[in-house]
Amino acid sequence: MAVYTRIEPGELRAFLAAYDIGEAIALEPIAEGVENSNYRLETTFGRFILTIYEKRVDPADLPFFLGLMMHLAERGLPCPLPVRARDGAMLRELKGKPAAIVSFLEGKSLKRILPRHCAAVGAALASVHLAARGFPLHRANALGLSGWRPLLAATRDRAHEVAEGLSALLEQELEELERRWPRDLPQGVIHADLFPDNVFFEGERISGLIDFYFACEDILAYDLAICLNAWCFENDGAFNVTKARALISGYRDRRPLSADEIGALPLLARGAALRFLLTRLFDWLNRVPDALVRPKDPREYLLKLRFHQSISGPQAYGIA
Amino acid sequence: MAVYTRIEPGELRAFLAAYDIGEAIALEPIAEGVENSNYRLETTFGRFILTIYEKRVDPADLPFFLGLMMHLAERGLPCPLPVRARDGAMLRELKGKPAAIVSFLEGKSLKRILPRHCAAVGAALASVHLAARGFPLHRANALGLSGWRPLLAATRDRAHEVAEGLSALLEQELEELERRWPRDLPQGVIHADLFPDNVFFEGERISGLIDFYFACEDILAYDLAICLNAWCFENDGAFNVTKARALISGYRDRRPLSADEIGALPLLARGAALRFLLTRLFDWLNRVPDALVRPKDPREYLLKLRFHQSISGPQAYGIA
Repeated sequence: MAVYTRIEPGELRAFLAAYDIGEAIALEPIAEGVENSNYRLETTFGRFILTIYEKRVDPADLPFFLGLMMHLAERGLPCPLPVRARDGAMLRELKGKPAAIVSFLEGKSLKRILPRHCAAVGAALASVHLAARGFPLHRANALGLSGWRPLLAATRDRAHEVAEGLSALLEQELEELERRWPRDLPQGVIHADLFPDNVFFEGERISGLIDFYFACEDILAYDLAICLNAWCFENDGAFNVTKARALISGYRDRRPLSADEIGALPLLARGAALRFLLTRLFDWLNRVPDALVRPKDPREYLLKLRFHQSISGPQAYGIA
Repeated sequence: MAVYTRIEPGELRAFLAAYDIGEAIALEPIAEGVENSNYRLETTFGRFILTIYEKRVDPADLPFFLGLMMHLAERGLPCPLPVRARDGAMLRELKGKPAAIVSFLEGKSLKRILPRHCAAVGAALASVHLAARGFPLHRANALGLSGWRPLLAATRDRAHEVAEGLSALLEQELEELERRWPRDLPQGVIHADLFPDNVFFEGERISGLIDFYFACEDILAYDLAICLNAWCFENDGAFNVTKARALISGYRDRRPLSADEIGALPLLARGAALRFLLTRLFDWLNRVPDALVRPKDPREYLLKLRFHQSISGPQAYGIA
């Protein structure tokens, strides 16, 4: 739910006094985003994004998220650069909540995704994986394999409200994933949420990779599996093998995938589908009737899960 | 003299392999700049500036310059952000010379300077001074007070080729500055070369502060005096008091000036004029007849020096 913490001009002035980005000219809330309050901030020195972290984000994770953004931006990736206050801090407080300013990125997320965009996203994802090597902080994936069973427990009793027999299907799928989940694939820092909303384009070029608030350490190829689900299905639910081939090829051109990683992709894609199916199911079952933001339909990810269950191997993704 | 180190595609590819900014699309030399070889670099991830440091820059100073740019860019100032290679290094080697990649900044330097631009430059200069506090590296001003006597010695015998009686005037001025130079004014990191060429605007807003290759530690108000000379004289040599008032007011709005700093401005402006007069004189007397870039006329700064010698106090700059 996008929460808008109301900021008075005097509060903003006092907050900005700790920074060297000039005086505020304008501040407007951004409607997108469901976890935090985001504002477009224009000052005499340029445009920035001001974020107030609401209760869904654990403040203990913020140094990881902001540090990672800075690490990647300093390596030339088009990520938001956190702005340090004069005292060097990237994180301060506004209205009693953690708050940060990051640089503004030009560009827009895509309305219509073409295969060449998927190739660019694959290459960008590989660059994130490569550039993040050497980032010194650690964060386990709270929504990785070990996080799925608690989510299933919290949704099992009412899963049937969304689809008949869903809880049995989820239980069976999770058992299989727990049994077969790969243990030896290369791990590293992953974005874990690189959906089309979080990638800006200027023409054919990626101009922004945003929203690092699910970033964590996990299997690198699992991040590619998340993108396979997020970028390569059409609105009608059909899997687009041309997009999948482009995404994976774009990735491999920059970071080669081992035979084990390729072989594991269908299972990783099932895990990625289950992860979003479970969190969407939880949000759906716990929605507030009058909320401004309607939760996303979990059934979209049920269809994606079934697709990956049905294929005979990674060649279904258009790759050798 | 703009030197163009020729870079072959294979060399560029090998150089970029250490970075995560994608593949090169285009590389073109930039004609401006006299100290280093600069190139516009376009990659699949965006636009950058590639700089190869030629012999006029002391490699030992590069960590100060690049570190300062990163320090300021991280604080939200519109300065180039040095791009770290995958190993974290901001400085690498290309063709056996030190080389760095920094972010590209939008905007253009001004063709026609108005008083409101001077106010923006004053504010930006104050922000540099404030934001640089806490920057941990040190660099003395090689072209500060103690560097002027060696320059005078190197130009004395032939100074008359530029203006009759110039060496006597320089000797007398330097003696007076050495005797009266203020010792107790606030010091800090200064840009030391914030000429109109080094400030980009987008509309009325400053979008870029570049060329930190003279940055050092010195009297903060001396940096303002450099700007007074660089921004507040018309092409015909006339001093524009409206621009001076705007420049100084823009600065004071962000970083208040003490009575001592205000009182010292005419002397600091004489010092700033002498510094550029001496270096231009040196370059003029040592010019290569066939060089592509004609050295700047030292007499411009002789006129500025005479102006500051002639005034009765800082009220000549339009300030109280």
